[in-house]
Amino acid sequence: MTNKKYVYFFSEGDKSMKDLLGGKGANLAEMTRLGVPVPPGFTITTETCAEFHKTKKWPEGLDKELEKNIEMLEKAMDARFGDKIKPLLVSVRSGAAASMPGMMDTVLNLGINDETVQAIIRKSGNERFAWDSYRRFIQMFGDVDMGVEHKLFEEVLDKAKENKGVKYDTELDASDLKKVVTEYKQVVKKATGKDFPQDPREQLRLSINAIFNSWNNERAITYRKLNNITGLLGTAVNIQTMVFGNMGPTSGTGVCFSRNPSTGENHFYGEFLMNAQGEDVVAGIRTPLPISELKKTMHKQYAELVAIKDKLEKHYKDMQDMEFTIQEEKLYMLQTRNGKRTAHAAVRIAVEMVKEELIDEKTAILRVAPEQLDQLLHKTIDPAAKKKVKAIAKGLPASPGAAVGKIVFHAEHAVEMAEKGEKVVLVRTETSPEDIKGMHSAVGILTARGGMTSHAAVVARGMGKACVAGCSEIKVEEDAKKLTVGSLILKENDYITLDGSTGEVFHGQVGLMNPSLSGDFGTLMEWADKHRKLKVRTNGDTPTDAKVARGFGAEGIGLCRTEHMFFEGDRIKAVREMILSDSLEVRKKALAKLLPMQREDFTGLFTEMKGLPVTIRLLDPPLHEFLPHEEEDKKELAKELKVTLERVNAKCEELHEFNPMLGHRGCRLGIIFPEITEMQARAIFEAAVACEKKGIEVEPEVMVPLVGHVKELRLQKDIIVKVADDVMKESGKKIKYTVGTMIEVPRAALTADEIASEAEFFSFGTNDLTQMGLGLSRDDSGKFLPAYVDLGIYERDPFQALDQSGVGELMKIAIKKGRHVKEKLKCGICGEHGGEPSSVEFCHRIGLNYVSCSPYRIPIARLAAAQAVLRDKE
Amino acid sequence: MTNKKYVYFFSEGDKSMKDLLGGKGANLAEMTRLGVPVPPGFTITTETCAEFHKTKKWPEGLDKELEKNIEMLEKAMDARFGDKIKPLLVSVRSGAAASMPGMMDTVLNLGINDETVQAIIRKSGNERFAWDSYRRFIQMFGDVDMGVEHKLFEEVLDKAKENKGVKYDTELDASDLKKVVTEYKQVVKKATGKDFPQDPREQLRLSINAIFNSWNNERAITYRKLNNITGLLGTAVNIQTMVFGNMGPTSGTGVCFSRNPSTGENHFYGEFLMNAQGEDVVAGIRTPLPISELKKTMHKQYAELVAIKDKLEKHYKDMQDMEFTIQEEKLYMLQTRNGKRTAHAAVRIAVEMVKEELIDEKTAILRVAPEQLDQLLHKTIDPAAKKKVKAIAKGLPASPGAAVGKIVFHAEHAVEMAEKGEKVVLVRTETSPEDIKGMHSAVGILTARGGMTSHAAVVARGMGKACVAGCSEIKVEEDAKKLTVGSLILKENDYITLDGSTGEVFHGQVGLMNPSLSGDFGTLMEWADKHRKLKVRTNGDTPTDAKVARGFGAEGIGLCRTEHMFFEGDRIKAVREMILSDSLEVRKKALAKLLPMQREDFTGLFTEMKGLPVTIRLLDPPLHEFLPHEEEDKKELAKELKVTLERVNAKCEELHEFNPMLGHRGCRLGIIFPEITEMQARAIFEAAVACEKKGIEVEPEVMVPLVGHVKELRLQKDIIVKVADDVMKESGKKIKYTVGTMIEVPRAALTADEIASEAEFFSFGTNDLTQMGLGLSRDDSGKFLPAYVDLGIYERDPFQALDQSGVGELMKIAIKKGRHVKEKLKCGICGEHGGEPSSVEFCHRIGLNYVSCSPYRIPIARLAAAQAVLRDKE
Repeated sequence: MTNKKYVYFFSEGDKSMKDLLGGKGANLAEMTRLGVPVPPGFTITTETCAEFHKTKKWPEGLDKELEKNIEMLEKAMDARFGDKIKPLLVSVRSGAAASMPGMMDTVLNLGINDETVQAIIRKSGNERFAWDSYRRFIQMFGDVDMGVEHKLFEEVLDKAKENKGVKYDTELDASDLKKVVTEYKQVVKKATGKDFPQDPREQLRLSINAIFNSWNNERAITYRKLNNITGLLGTAVNIQTMVFGNMGPTSGTGVCFSRNPSTGENHFYGEFLMNAQGEDVVAGIRTPLPISELKKTMHKQYAELVAIKDKLEKHYKDMQDMEFTIQEEKLYMLQTRNGKRTAHAAVRIAVEMVKEELIDEKTAILRVAPEQLDQLLHKTIDPAAKKKVKAIAKGLPASPGAAVGKIVFHAEHAVEMAEKGEKVVLVRTETSPEDIKGMHSAVGILTARGGMTSHAAVVARGMGKACVAGCSEIKVEEDAKKLTVGSLILKENDYITLDGSTGEVFHGQVGLMNPSLSGDFGTLMEWADKHRKLKVRTNGDTPTDAKVARGFGAEGIGLCRTEHMFFEGDRIKAVREMILSDSLEVRKKALAKLLPMQREDFTGLFTEMKGLPVTIRLLDPPLHEFLPHEEEDKKELAKELKVTLERVNAKCEELHEFNPMLGHRGCRLGIIFPEITEMQARAIFEAAVACEKKGIEVEPEVMVPLVGHVKELRLQKDIIVKVADDVMKESGKKIKYTVGTMIEVPRAALTADEIASEAEFFSFGTNDLTQMGLGLSRDDSGKFLPAYVDLGIYERDPFQALDQSGVGELMKIAIKKGRHVKEKLKCGICGEHGGEPSSVEFCHRIGLNYVSCSPYRIPIARLAAAQAVLRDKE
Repeated sequence: MTNKKYVYFFSEGDKSMKDLLGGKGANLAEMTRLGVPVPPGFTITTETCAEFHKTKKWPEGLDKELEKNIEMLEKAMDARFGDKIKPLLVSVRSGAAASMPGMMDTVLNLGINDETVQAIIRKSGNERFAWDSYRRFIQMFGDVDMGVEHKLFEEVLDKAKENKGVKYDTELDASDLKKVVTEYKQVVKKATGKDFPQDPREQLRLSINAIFNSWNNERAITYRKLNNITGLLGTAVNIQTMVFGNMGPTSGTGVCFSRNPSTGENHFYGEFLMNAQGEDVVAGIRTPLPISELKKTMHKQYAELVAIKDKLEKHYKDMQDMEFTIQEEKLYMLQTRNGKRTAHAAVRIAVEMVKEELIDEKTAILRVAPEQLDQLLHKTIDPAAKKKVKAIAKGLPASPGAAVGKIVFHAEHAVEMAEKGEKVVLVRTETSPEDIKGMHSAVGILTARGGMTSHAAVVARGMGKACVAGCSEIKVEEDAKKLTVGSLILKENDYITLDGSTGEVFHGQVGLMNPSLSGDFGTLMEWADKHRKLKVRTNGDTPTDAKVARGFGAEGIGLCRTEHMFFEGDRIKAVREMILSDSLEVRKKALAKLLPMQREDFTGLFTEMKGLPVTIRLLDPPLHEFLPHEEEDKKELAKELKVTLERVNAKCEELHEFNPMLGHRGCRLGIIFPEITEMQARAIFEAAVACEKKGIEVEPEVMVPLVGHVKELRLQKDIIVKVADDVMKESGKKIKYTVGTMIEVPRAALTADEIASEAEFFSFGTNDLTQMGLGLSRDDSGKFLPAYVDLGIYERDPFQALDQSGVGELMKIAIKKGRHVKEKLKCGICGEHGGEPSSVEFCHRIGLNYVSCSPYRIPIARLAAAQAVLRDKE
């Protein structure tokens, strides 16, 4: 206990001392250490807080150290606590080693009392400001330090406004506020039985205790619990001199960036206001001036500021976002941090800093958040245009990009309108595979139901189309061709704008910006490719998908969903004929019609992928997904197939499932109807032969879905191998192919050793693995999952970011068991997580060979894969 | 290779040589070794088969050994291959170390040719028999050994019957069959170009090769593959002298048991026929005589048989099921095996054999198949009555026992009829919680849809009522009050009989037998309880359940489903009021109405269980399960709650889920509506206080369902603990309680270490764990799961018998991780598997503390738990 140092003057610390000084304290010390002018101050350590909670009192020696530091502060500022001419005012802020935003308390303007307020009036020449500061201080202090209910103060303020007949606080003048101060003090007296303390040292002591105590308030405890923050000692307390930018014409305040955060251009950027407080700049009451104007009015301070921003950028080796205040000609830096920036700026800054030799390539790669790249790959809403409109509803950001178009409610209508050259947004309660063509024709999709991996979302992402899904605020009545949000009713042909990156929906046409893949972007991708170990494939079903994906750098197809081929044109008819038949013979006849079409699909895909591996998944969805839902369509189907409507209805009824996600789908179809697997295998191998004959190399990987037991795979593999042998014998061509399986049922992961004895590759289907592993239906979880994320149960929607401890654990088990049997077993991921950066990083860490994602997320995956390698090395 | 012995005469082997001699060969050797008269023979080893497949020829030395053994056989029988007076006939049968029923080939009557057939005519005095034997031999041999198509023989036989104008084979006489033999030989010649071999040694050589080859026929390979039979060398070949019971008045054949297999009584039991073949006894053409009659006709042979049965029973220490043949006064034993028996007999024999000091208690415990006990605990269909009727349909044996009653289609009607004293069977397409009261009133339940763990099945088992579920052959039209099976239409008030143990459905009233728990049963249970380590609890929701369960020996309640309490009487109204409200205030008001009712439920349960632990699961099913489905009920509800029908419909629509099993249920309800958890916790603790005040000890274990993430449990536990504290403070009583969780979501098992930090116990909910772990909806899998079991993908329905490698692996992971954090963590199982013997044994092996099952399965679980301990020690 002895010899412990409880208080550090800013000049005594540095950024390495986060555990002891907290995050905020360590950074203020770092700036001070760099010689940057920071309002002086000191930090009481987290250890002090811990001892306070243990012994319920201040540790011995803290008093003395505190006094010593106050003296140093007074000396540094040439001001004194309670001084009538040069009063010292300070802020008291909490600051733990881990960020706990808003969880603990802050007191500003500490040091004001009935006497010093006069000095502030004199110094600031702004009586209103002085009284308002005093008023705020009493309110904050009374609330935080003395436990006076917030609403008691609010009542006084409300009455003051009422008496004057005004609405806003800002309409109260100095004398009004002076009266409020008087009444506030009475409130404190009445509530606590004590006078509001006039002695700044007592104010400080109470504030320090309050902050210590706030470490263990209920909110903070819950926050730490939910965020798994453990092992911390307590909070540090930062006491820092207040500085004011509104002390007259030689004072001012501003915010600036060492480079342009919008474009990334390397020029000093920012804005300021003279005789103003930080709040004024933010609030937009007065219009700030560009930072270059400061050069004219305060040349010396501007030069100093430029020198500081250069120094800070060089020191932190990143674009800095800084706050400064000039108090009576003296410049103070209040904050510096790595600046937020647009995707454009991030890429440009990273690449240019390498050219400037400020950072190396690896650092540049780590500097750009992969998720941000999305902005560069899709149309976006023009930020200027966005400022002028308000969203009418907000759903899930299901597929990024922005879209403007006329509302249509039916897929067929979307096709018709698109053929006439109209841009349309397809609006549905939910989409089904029947809507695919309409989705193709639309520029964007909006659904009232469904989650991040609902049909609409998955298909839209695959197509690279903007989609807002699960927008539960809107009500869609397809038959009435009506969309209702609150009292607003939109009809067919009304314009609507979607922002698929934020989930926002706007009424009317909002201006968009085109994506641009600049040269810097290409450079960054090149660097990323040098480092990454994970291959990046794409999920794609058509030659068009394949082409787009190769443009983005795809190294193969990780998932071709063959059922998507079943919906086009006449095919759906043959599919329905097959489903409706109860005899093997009729089923085989219908399948024979599908064979040439599927063969053609695969031929196109192989041709586009020229020798790169193509993973083809056998039929996956339950058969009822192929049947029509509307009465009219059912009638038409009955007519086409020359059966009764009753028969169609009976089949729909028979195939109905309570939990289709856990029903008759995946390889369970091929086990009960082996003829389907036979047809698909034949289409694959005949296509491969056709390509080989044209000199196009092919490498089909046949993937059996929804395997839970090795015997399922064995039975399906037997069929596939037999068909392959037959086709090779018939054609005289040898095809190199492999047969593998999705790992998407927990049981498959748990028995991966058995399954690996039959499988030549594993591909993790993390959508289903998440659904089953977490017991969470992606289509239904919208009702409670947002609340779960709010409560911090899951940090992020597990359908977006892989749940590493649950689903990830299954993946680790599967890889370990699988490679125990087959050391070199190729493992990949083809769930939606394959394009999400934190998931990609996890995939790298657990040793996958590749990730596969929708074409538009390939650059994101490439960058994330490179970052994973670099972080791994750290 | 040298010195290897390829052929064993029966007297050279014993039952320990199964790997080398196959199962059949080893057992024939054992009987021979015991001195029991067995028709002599020898076995060619499995190693020989392996070498044959390796080298494609007979190993050197086999010829010689074979000849030597043939000579031994001829000597033993005083008969010779091909002898015109005393010809030796043999059977040639396959027999691997593992049972592969019907997968490989058999040849009988080998040794017959044109000359020996005459000797057989002479010896048997039965010309027809001789020619029929010859005919059958050519057909079997031609098919198996020479590859002649079966149908070519059939054509000849069909023509012979046609020519004679008869329908059955048995109507052909000796001269007809003699002609058939001639034509058969021509068929062989024509098909193979070879004469049918007359030399018995050649016949034998070809037959041995055929059996070696049958080891690798497609059927056998597939069978081994699907049944994971690996590591076997091949099949052995058993060559055994044919004996005939139809060689005249001093020959005969019979089947007998060392004790009565129906009642277990210790007296010699069986039947026989003189001058007959085994087939005749089985076929029932002539009526066999009771074995005691044999004493009169063949005193010596009878005495010998009695001595043999005593010897065999003593040797095998179990009731024996034997086949014998007397050929010209000489007695031969053809088979002995442990006899199948009824549950009554099994229990009686086991207990009596201990009294006779033939076996010890442990052996007795292991002697009774736990599953069989079910027969003793429910009404059963009288076997005599059953013989006279044919089932009209077969569904899943969802809840054991038999029931006879009048058909009703609606729950309310069932209640009305039962009140009038009628016995009714409730017939529904499927049941829902609304039907509970009707199910209570019915004697049995029949549903057209749903699996072994569907609502109907689970509830029926809990109530101990007969239930046939998922009977897809029947069509139920509730509104039309009609049940259709094929062309049969049954209406309300028609009688129907269900056998819930077999899944059979009978038209009309079939006679039933009452269960009787005999003294032997009690003795066996006592012995079992001495050995078992697993505690056995019950799943029960009402004081009645609790009482029944205690009668069966329950040691606590492992699962009380609180939602079952929500359906009775006025409660459902309050529940619906809660669900329909969108405001917390209204919800709380509705919950306040439920509080006293739930408190009363728990008080009753605690009182009945007097100090035994009671695990109470918080509300689990999705809320839509509580809403009405029929339009009429919805209207009524709207009226009752004074809301519009639209509002009721809108709520139903809003709560609709695509995959309710993975939807908003379990603790997800309590997280979104904490007030529900609060109410339930309050009811539990207030009931506990009420009981304690009356001096009744209570030990509530509050169980949070469907936890996937530790934070869910933490949030719910916080509420429970707070309510407990409040209630204890209010009442001044201290209640001992624990808070734990179901482990039913795979993620919970995978992160059990985290969850154990908050949970005081784990209870495996293996129904859901199976659904999610295998990706299998219990309500939908009926469409393909039967085929899966047929194909051998799963050996048994995983909802009946725990899938040990998949779901079991999750359990093992959970226990290991959980106990790593809490060494003494109490773990149990409350899924349906808790009463299934193989699952109970698994639960013992992985170290669970208890199993919980429906009351009627408690004795089964007790016995299975004891067997698990005894097997573990072996």
